[in-house]
Parts: sequence; C-alpha cells; structure tokens
Amino acid sequence: MRPLAQPPPMDMPRIPFPELRDTIRTAFERAGMPPDKAAACARIHAESSLDGVNSHGLNRVERFVDYIHRGWVDVRAEAVPVQAMGSLEVWDGRLGPGVLNAQQAMERATDVARRDGMGIVALRNTTHWMRGGTYGWQAAEAGCIAMCWTNTESCMPAWGARSECIGNNPFVAAVPRKDGHLVLDMAMSQYSYGRLQVTRLRGERLPYPGGFDAEGELTDDPAAIEATRRILPTGFWKGSGLAVMLDLVAAILSGGRTTAEVDRLGKGSCGSCCQVFIAFDPQSQHTAATIEAAVEGTVRQLHAAMPAGEGGKVRHPGERTLMTRTANLAQGVPVDSGVWAAVCRLAGQPDA
Amino acid sequence: MRPLAQPPPMDMPRIPFPELRDTIRTAFERAGMPPDKAAACARIHAESSLDGVNSHGLNRVERFVDYIHRGWVDVRAEAVPVQAMGSLEVWDGRLGPGVLNAQQAMERATDVARRDGMGIVALRNTTHWMRGGTYGWQAAEAGCIAMCWTNTESCMPAWGARSECIGNNPFVAAVPRKDGHLVLDMAMSQYSYGRLQVTRLRGERLPYPGGFDAEGELTDDPAAIEATRRILPTGFWKGSGLAVMLDLVAAILSGGRTTAEVDRLGKGSCGSCCQVFIAFDPQSQHTAATIEAAVEGTVRQLHAAMPAGEGGKVRHPGERTLMTRTANLAQGVPVDSGVWAAVCRLAGQPDA
Repeated sequence: MRPLAQPPPMDMPRIPFPELRDTIRTAFERAGMPPDKAAACARIHAESSLDGVNSHGLNRVERFVDYIHRGWVDVRAEAVPVQAMGSLEVWDGRLGPGVLNAQQAMERATDVARRDGMGIVALRNTTHWMRGGTYGWQAAEAGCIAMCWTNTESCMPAWGARSECIGNNPFVAAVPRKDGHLVLDMAMSQYSYGRLQVTRLRGERLPYPGGFDAEGELTDDPAAIEATRRILPTGFWKGSGLAVMLDLVAAILSGGRTTAEVDRLGKGSCGSCCQVFIAFDPQSQHTAATIEAAVEGTVRQLHAAMPAGEGGKVRHPGERTLMTRTANLAQGVPVDSGVWAAVCRLAGQPDA
Repeated sequence: MRPLAQPPPMDMPRIPFPELRDTIRTAFERAGMPPDKAAACARIHAESSLDGVNSHGLNRVERFVDYIHRGWVDVRAEAVPVQAMGSLEVWDGRLGPGVLNAQQAMERATDVARRDGMGIVALRNTTHWMRGGTYGWQAAEAGCIAMCWTNTESCMPAWGARSECIGNNPFVAAVPRKDGHLVLDMAMSQYSYGRLQVTRLRGERLPYPGGFDAEGELTDDPAAIEATRRILPTGFWKGSGLAVMLDLVAAILSGGRTTAEVDRLGKGSCGSCCQVFIAFDPQSQHTAATIEAAVEGTVRQLHAAMPAGEGGKVRHPGERTLMTRTANLAQGVPVDSGVWAAVCRLAGQPDA
C-alpha cells in the first residue's frame, strides 16, 4: 500500500496563522467586502490552509476576488429564510459569499437541533463554500452530529460517460468527540484537479488511478487525465451515482438549481448552487455516557486494527487533520510562494 | 471501459415471480414465521431477486432460516417506538425480522414526512435488512425522497488496516419520478464477497481491482482477495471513512450498537444492528412542477452525455434495475439451480 498523505515539500515557506488570516482579510476588504464579513471569510480561508487544505483556502483567494469583481458573488448579500416547516427550513443565499451563507445555515441547523433534536436547512442560490469540512468542524464544535453537502457545476463524467455531466458534490459528516472530533470531507471525484496539477508539477504519479487516458484506459498519470478531463468518480459507478442523488436532493429540498442548471447559468464554480445542512443534537435523546461509549469504542477499534504497513496506524476521519492543524499552528502554515505573493499583492502588501 | 453489469448465464433456470415468492413464503412459514409476516418477508426477498439482486434475495433464504433456528432472529417480534421528539423517532427492533422492521421504519418516516415535511426514524436492535434498495423503492413509491443506511458487523479492513474492523454499511438514496424512480443502493465495499465468489466460479477477473493480495498489492483476482479477506473500501480511503461515519451516526441516533459492539455480540451478520431512515415529502414545500423540472433536467443531462463506449448510454441510478425487473417479470427470475433446489426443500416441495 502506497502512502496517501504527503508532507509539504521542504521548500514551502511557512507563514504564521495570524499573518495569513490578516493578509487574506485585507485582500477581501480591498475587494469591497465589509470589514466584518471580510474578517469572517478570511478566518475560514486561513483555517482551511491551517488544516492542510490550501486548495480551498489560500489558493482560492485570487479566484474569489475575481468572482467578486465579475459580480458573481455579492459581497453584501445575506442569506434569508424563505420557508419553514417544523425542523426543516429553506433559505435563499442571494448569491452572497458562500462560506458565510454556509456557516449561517449550519449555525441555524444546530440551533434548531438543540430545540427539536434535529434541524435541517436547505440553502439555494448560494456560492462556493470552499472547504466543506469547515461546516462539519463547526457543527462538532457546537456538540452536534452533522451531515452536509453541496452540488456544483459539471466537472466530471458520470460513470459510462466521456463528457462532464455531473458535479463532484462534496459530502461532509461530523461526530463530536472530546479528544478530537470525527470529520469526513469527501468529494465524489477520486482526486481534485488541484491534486492532479500538484502531482504533475512534482513529476510524480498518483498513488492510485485517478481517471482515463486518451485510449479510455485507467491511468495514474495526472497529465494524461488533465488532457482528457475524464477524472474518475470515487468508487467508479458508486461515486457517480451518489453525486447524482446528492445533487437532486439538494436542489429539490431547497427549490434551487441542479448541476445541469448551474451549468447553464455559467456564473463560475458553484455559482447559484444548493446545499443541505442536517444537524442532530444527540443529547436530546441519549445520555452523554452512551454517546461517548459508542464513539470511544469505535475509535479504539480503529486504532487497534492491524496496520497494513509496518509502523502504520489506522486513523479516524479527521485525525490527520488535527495533527496537521497542531503542527501548522506551531510551525506556521506551509504556502506556495507564488500564491502567497499574489495574495500579498491583493492585500497591498509587499510579500516577504 | 469494461462492462459493469453482466447478463445472467444462459444456463440459469428462470422461475416465474409468483412461484418464487410463494415458495419462499412456504419456506418461511415452515421455519415458524406467522403467515402474514412470512408473506411480507417472502415478497421482499422475491422482489430483490426480481430486480437482479439474488445475493440479497433468494440466496439469503437458507441463511435467514438458519438464523431463525439459532434464535438470532425472533420471527414474532415487532419493532416498537421508544422515544419521539418532533419529527425524529427512535425505535427498538427487538431482534425481529430485519426486512419487516426496516419496512415499518421507512413507512413511519414517510408518514411523518407527510405530516411535518420530513421524518426520521432511528432503529436499533434490528437484524439484516437484506437489500437496502428495497426501502428506497418503498419511499419513492410513497412519493418521498429518502436516504437510509445500516451498520453491519466488521467485514472489511479500514483504509490502512490489514484486519477487518469496519462494516460495509450500505447507504441508499431515492428520488421519486413518474417514469421510473431514481434509487441508489451502495455498500461501502467495492465488491461484495458474493460477487467475488461468482466471478471466481466463472473463472473470470473483476472488472476493476477489488482488494489486496497476499503481497499487499491491489488485485482483480477474486480468489486472491478471498484468501486475504482484504476487500477494498469503495474509493479507497473515502468509502472507509464514510463507513465509519455512517456506523457512528446510526448507533448514536438510535442508542444502539456500533459495528464494534455488533462484533462482540456475535449474533450473525447484522445481528442487533442499527439503521437510520430519513424521508422528505418534497411537495410539502415546493410545487410538483419545480420538482419535476429538476428531476427531468438531470435525467436528460445524463442521457445526453457522450458515452464512453460505442453504443453505450449513461443511466440514472435505478434505471438498469427497472430494466431488469421488467425483463424478469416477463421471462421469469433467473436463479442458481442449487440455491433454488435448497429453498424448494425448505418449502417441502420437490424442485422442478
């Protein structure tokens, strides 16, 4: 079994978390965001980088600013509730900043969960939520079990297709735990285009096949997949089917746009997409001791499993993220120097 | 791209659906099930075979009868509600027949959904639900969107593990549609042990790698995987993580047993497992026209996608199942002759 997680290259500069966050905040303010929204948005982008997910943190700042300038994201718009029925609410994101809309929707879902045992917010007409895991960690911090997902524009062929026709529709699940939450954050593609690019630039192969080459054969060569744009749904037909279902459930529950309709609108990645946020307050029905026994017993079973490789250890979802977070808080957040320089320029600052 | 679905071998006998159903019913009655429960259970087993899923239909009859004789399934027990909070209910399956418990739980979830817009039933202490898709089709027939899943005993190594420590925890999603529902039914393993066995017996290879061989390398040789018992989580680390989260959410919400606890109890496959049934009544908040536009637009986009292979066509989740159902209703249900003979013996009937 080949290693999955890769340490950042030694030559990546490391930026202290507060400096990273504040620089992104300044960039967002200079793009026209009100200061409170710029601060909240910047914190979430910086935390994604802190957790090792630059692809949806620092590396998305330039594109987000570009979307603001194009009018695809309305930096002043706020999500509003449009319908409510018991514990199920429909909200309209009004094309406001996706991370703020999603944060608000999950906050509302956890509030309703504390009232009713569970709460669901279906959000339509929103924009890119960046790292989906953000809202899983948020719910777990609030003591709630959560599941949430988003649809996207088409970026992947369905199983059996040569052309892009489904989204990669990330799905998130979270279970709170005293000694580190369990958080799963998975897109329905096996690898992101960002991962293909990074792997190609390092002159490496993917650890496992990630798409089809020009001959229609599975390949681990990132360049061959970038050329065909035939990235692989995770689990072949399974991830393809799950992407279709997540898209439809989100669009129908929110009364918003399906992937096919997001495609037609053409307002960039996730422009006017839909999301569902489900939160449960487990303590509304069960004792803290029962819940803790289930979680700790499961973590123990994983940690006790015989590892596939010598010296390996089986981790629970979210465990590596927490290790990365701790290390990067202490040592600084590794960044691509070119990306960091560009964001510093957007912030009107000379880069180090 | 290699073909996924395989037609039944030409030499499989075909049994008319009513004969299949009635023979299974008699077998269940002779095992001690009350007639009404035997009839309901037999219909569901026969429908799974009708839909092309013998592995969780006819082929499970012998094992189910064995579980009854061992006392692992209580044929007279019925699920009872133990807690309710708004649209969220907890039920105890009391180790009754899993298919009847699951059917009742989904029926309750859809009833609550019609009242509240959505309904959730968390079911603990139940037994094997056989084909998860059954309850997706049931909800869609009732006009509801649904998601449901089950935990199981350990049957798969987590990602990075050599030993079995997680369930394959099937997940089901359903969206109703006038011209054929969309139903996804996926376990978190890439292939079932049943599929490995069938492929080996035919002297074939799996279409894609399905596990690890003795050297720890991915292989498409079913016998090598059966030897190591290192079947592959779907999407590698993704299906592994999703299995862990689905297990925990089901166990915590229902106050029931996690996979680790099902392992320790040791009452066979899925003995005292947990399930979650989520149903939405989309028409509680949105018009039929809006919903239909989303579903039909998505199906159109899939059907219009450029196929990967010549003469191919992209299908929506559930579409092949409906084609199989129609064909098998007309021509009879293909069965393994040895399995059919054994079930006929259980029914006290000479097999044809």
